[in-house]
Amino acid sequence: MRRIRLTVAYDGTNYCGWQIQPNGITVEEVLKKTIEKLTGEKVTVLGASRTDSGVHALGNVAVFDTESRIPAERFSYALNQKLPRDITVVESREVPLTWHPRYQNSRKTYEYRIINAPVLYPTERLYHCFVSFPLDVEKMREGAACLTGEHDFASFCCIRTGAKSTVRTITDLEIFQEGEYITIRVTGTGFLYNMVRIIAGTLIRVGRGFYEPEKVQELLEGRVRTREAVTAPPEGLFLIKIAYEGEEG
Amino acid sequence: MRRIRLTVAYDGTNYCGWQIQPNGITVEEVLKKTIEKLTGEKVTVLGASRTDSGVHALGNVAVFDTESRIPAERFSYALNQKLPRDITVVESREVPLTWHPRYQNSRKTYEYRIINAPVLYPTERLYHCFVSFPLDVEKMREGAACLTGEHDFASFCCIRTGAKSTVRTITDLEIFQEGEYITIRVTGTGFLYNMVRIIAGTLIRVGRGFYEPEKVQELLEGRVRTREAVTAPPEGLFLIKIAYEGEEG
Repeated sequence: MRRIRLTVAYDGTNYCGWQIQPNGITVEEVLKKTIEKLTGEKVTVLGASRTDSGVHALGNVAVFDTESRIPAERFSYALNQKLPRDITVVESREVPLTWHPRYQNSRKTYEYRIINAPVLYPTERLYHCFVSFPLDVEKMREGAACLTGEHDFASFCCIRTGAKSTVRTITDLEIFQEGEYITIRVTGTGFLYNMVRIIAGTLIRVGRGFYEPEKVQELLEGRVRTREAVTAPPEGLFLIKIAYEGEEG
Repeated sequence: MRRIRLTVAYDGTNYCGWQIQPNGITVEEVLKKTIEKLTGEKVTVLGASRTDSGVHALGNVAVFDTESRIPAERFSYALNQKLPRDITVVESREVPLTWHPRYQNSRKTYEYRIINAPVLYPTERLYHCFVSFPLDVEKMREGAACLTGEHDFASFCCIRTGAKSTVRTITDLEIFQEGEYITIRVTGTGFLYNMVRIIAGTLIRVGRGFYEPEKVQELLEGRVRTREAVTAPPEGLFLIKIAYEGEEG
């Protein structure tokens, strides 16, 4: 028995997120069925990040166990021949049987991509959040400054979260601007359900002048989710990469 | 009666091209129906470029005539409220009743967008042609050099073309490379059916080393379409803009 680790990229547009569920097709399900077709075995796919409906990934990580003799590095090519075009296995390799994508120290990097333009660009609509009101990026940066470090992010997570603790650490948060393109890039050791989208939605309100930058700190210190912390739409969110401790990232 | 000119952007993925046809939904049809819903009149939409199925546009141009009192500049906003998210009116304004988007001297700029990478990127798949074999961009440029100027492009058009003459002028053809992204940008006074995609497909063969750069000139001089001039897939093609004589471009 070998454990194969996959780096998976996908366009989340047509999926009900990562995790298998009864009412809709998910990335995990398509991946599992494709591996089963390839190997002729029943497999369980364990994913690192259970991304939400409509959210994209460039580098999610998953593992499965197999008796197949296909060389580990060859799985990416073999699976890509059978996968739909909106899911790609970027890399495959063998890991120890005890290696679990969620029970390792890691840093996840997400990007929230915004286009700040008066009209929607049709060919970018599935991969950006469009904001037609002018955004003040400097103010967004001011507002975001309080979020790095270890904090109780209860105000920035979905009320339905099942997490035991709402304390998380953001190691890095930067906001880049290139013309109309604004990217919020955030790295942390873990994220609560909807956390990046709620941070993005709230920072967009700051950028529009709807909130003062200080509002972000105020919400954070409130430690309770209110309607003031708004969730930005899923299509702007990309899981960029997961860097595991002891690996190059 | 006023004539309104629209600059239209669209994602061609889900359309059978621009022109109204019986067997499938087209951009022209959706635009026409949306204008009719807005104005309450029957209208005819005249488009500048009848882009093919799956081809995208950032700046196609169309006109329609109306008795409506909506200010010309306001049509873009009003139509965007009713259009699906894959079609956007970027700009609207009044033009003389005699102004026809196809019977004016103009220069059209197209881009053919390639990603040269070993695997397909799911979130880019609808807007690029993926080439996994390494491309030699310098050789593609060498091959393309003979195409600028006035030529008989019979070898680079679809056999089913209805054009009376296959002579066209390419005023500019450049190939840009930025990492894995390769863009063929071509401007001309007019293009034959499938011409840009056949140029792109043939230059990709040159880049792969399948053809020597001199092959392009040889095909051009042959003045007859053969299977050696291959059509690149539609998703990589963007109609970027149409610059009319006497206007800023």
